[in-house]
Amino acid sequence: MTREPARLAAAETVAVELGERGYDILIGPGLIAGAGPELARRFPGARYAIVTDETVAGHHLEPLAASLTDAGLAYSSIVITPGEASKSFEVFGDVVDGVLSARLERGDLLIALGGGVVGDLVGFVAGVVRRGMRFVQVPTTLLAQVDSSVGGKTGINTRHGKNLVGVFHQPSLVLADTGALDTLAPRDFRAGYAEVAKYGLIDDPAFFAWLETHWQEVFAGGAARIQAVATSCRAKAHVVRIDEKETGPRALLNLGHTFGHALEAITGYDGSRLVHGEAVSIGMVLAHDFSVRMNLCSPDDAARARAHLEAIGLPVSPRQVPGGVGTADDLMAAIFQDKKVKRGRLTFILTRGIGQSFIADDVAPDVVRAFLAEQI
Amino acid sequence: MTREPARLAAAETVAVELGERGYDILIGPGLIAGAGPELARRFPGARYAIVTDETVAGHHLEPLAASLTDAGLAYSSIVITPGEASKSFEVFGDVVDGVLSARLERGDLLIALGGGVVGDLVGFVAGVVRRGMRFVQVPTTLLAQVDSSVGGKTGINTRHGKNLVGVFHQPSLVLADTGALDTLAPRDFRAGYAEVAKYGLIDDPAFFAWLETHWQEVFAGGAARIQAVATSCRAKAHVVRIDEKETGPRALLNLGHTFGHALEAITGYDGSRLVHGEAVSIGMVLAHDFSVRMNLCSPDDAARARAHLEAIGLPVSPRQVPGGVGTADDLMAAIFQDKKVKRGRLTFILTRGIGQSFIADDVAPDVVRAFLAEQI
Repeated sequence: MTREPARLAAAETVAVELGERGYDILIGPGLIAGAGPELARRFPGARYAIVTDETVAGHHLEPLAASLTDAGLAYSSIVITPGEASKSFEVFGDVVDGVLSARLERGDLLIALGGGVVGDLVGFVAGVVRRGMRFVQVPTTLLAQVDSSVGGKTGINTRHGKNLVGVFHQPSLVLADTGALDTLAPRDFRAGYAEVAKYGLIDDPAFFAWLETHWQEVFAGGAARIQAVATSCRAKAHVVRIDEKETGPRALLNLGHTFGHALEAITGYDGSRLVHGEAVSIGMVLAHDFSVRMNLCSPDDAARARAHLEAIGLPVSPRQVPGGVGTADDLMAAIFQDKKVKRGRLTFILTRGIGQSFIADDVAPDVVRAFLAEQI
Repeated sequence: MTREPARLAAAETVAVELGERGYDILIGPGLIAGAGPELARRFPGARYAIVTDETVAGHHLEPLAASLTDAGLAYSSIVITPGEASKSFEVFGDVVDGVLSARLERGDLLIALGGGVVGDLVGFVAGVVRRGMRFVQVPTTLLAQVDSSVGGKTGINTRHGKNLVGVFHQPSLVLADTGALDTLAPRDFRAGYAEVAKYGLIDDPAFFAWLETHWQEVFAGGAARIQAVATSCRAKAHVVRIDEKETGPRALLNLGHTFGHALEAITGYDGSRLVHGEAVSIGMVLAHDFSVRMNLCSPDDAARARAHLEAIGLPVSPRQVPGGVGTADDLMAAIFQDKKVKRGRLTFILTRGIGQSFIADDVAPDVVRAFLAEQI
């Protein structure tokens, strides 16, 4: 049997303009099976270490490896256990050891093949081995394609919280294979879609309106999916360009995330109850409703945001979380634990309407507590 | 009993010009006991975690802590085991956990109080906690004052080699207390002096000549010591400014280090046999002698370099290493393990005379092996 010829040309290219740390995001189907020639052209002479997890390896390691072999590229592979628990000091040390054992040098590249866990972990490893190696993100979930694989935030978790240890380290290339998303469970696709909708809600009302009309096509695949991923990546690339180290406007990307992180913490990061994108969906609805309460946003716009996420099949209220989310005080404690709290003042992303989000850095904790008490 | 009033004014300030990552190196006596007001002035509102080792804590933790307390600054302290073995994943994880337990935020600072091990480890911790915190280097050895505390190279060791895991992360301030060097054992002072002499040998013949005349005063303390440390820091700051990430001329700082690292590896990093500065001393003499062999350097200049290091009491030949250094093949194997070997070609820092070093990136391994065989 002959292998299907690799499709080398991406349907879309988004350039992340960061000077000497800039890179391209290629978006389209067939990019995993066609990775070899693309890598050979961009990184002549380099060797590779592919890092992936057991689940993703079952779907995508063989086609990627075959493509590298066909292009004459040397690689080794490191397979970790799937799941958030792998963002640990222990697995971090194991992967560092694996990369050093493979005798990769500074000019060689790591390939992060997988979702956000693999991307965050491998990006951190690449950021510290030999004080910084290049790496390629090959995100295989919608969430990773539109969010975590772009922007250079890497890290692992500790007992004190998520992503508290890591570096800013930009990839040298992102290959977002939109065909790979066909292997996702519907719940995971929906969860990633919450972050797609987020870009509309932040500052792109036209994109939000387009999603309201075309979301079924995004789920089905094809040109609409490519367009949704590309628009999301372009939005994120823009914010990253103007605020690489997250000292200012990049915080807009946290729309729905302060509430969302609190819900995730309360549910013990138990994916059977709540995954990240679901938490963000609820968080975005809360952010809109809270903005209505603050007389910032019209009830109609808040209802429209909620209706779209509900149509997708995403949860839109803390009451939908299996097992509940505790008391308003529990949620406030979790919010105060979040690393975006600065010297006791609460920073939230609030909104004046669809696509009109802004950073509010002086929100009074009491008002938030009273609001949350009504939501749970 | 009243405490001696702190001396706030440093005798010398060297600015490391790296744009928004730039910082000052203050050099002079009394800087540890006078740290509090300096920190309060530079970093208003910040809290601190002092990281040091048991040996250094005995000499310097109380005066530093008292100075912070007197200035109204909040701090916690973390004390690690002295020695190179602390540059490990395990101690790294412990210090990260200690910093997070102290609930420091992104605007707070770590203080690395100690020699190169503490500085490299704490710099790495600061580079990754919350994706980058600020830190202050307070180097208490001559080696750390003139070399490792300046330039932002941080890291830990793995079973694959030294400093293979780390980041480039510049400190926000360096306090080089030249009075603290009075607590050093003579052997450790001599070892640090090898790096001082290195700056003369790299590109500053006038400084080397000054050292030949004034080295006893540098050892005795006072103005000559401040001048020697300041000249060294200024030299290193210049190289770091033009090549922060060590892609080019910064390699000059490795004069004597390719041979030196090989000798350290062969002796198992056993400080009772050979410490880093001693290895560098032997390495620099080998680099000069090898340059004579290659008809690059006059025998007189090589003899002059050797004579000065010998006068200090530093070893100048592999034959002086207790227990020997194995065969030429052993040394070559260690050289090939070194991370400065790129795709099989050997890069050495060679010299055309005192203060005329240059990067030679095409040295033939066979010639080196033959030379080394005569030296051991």
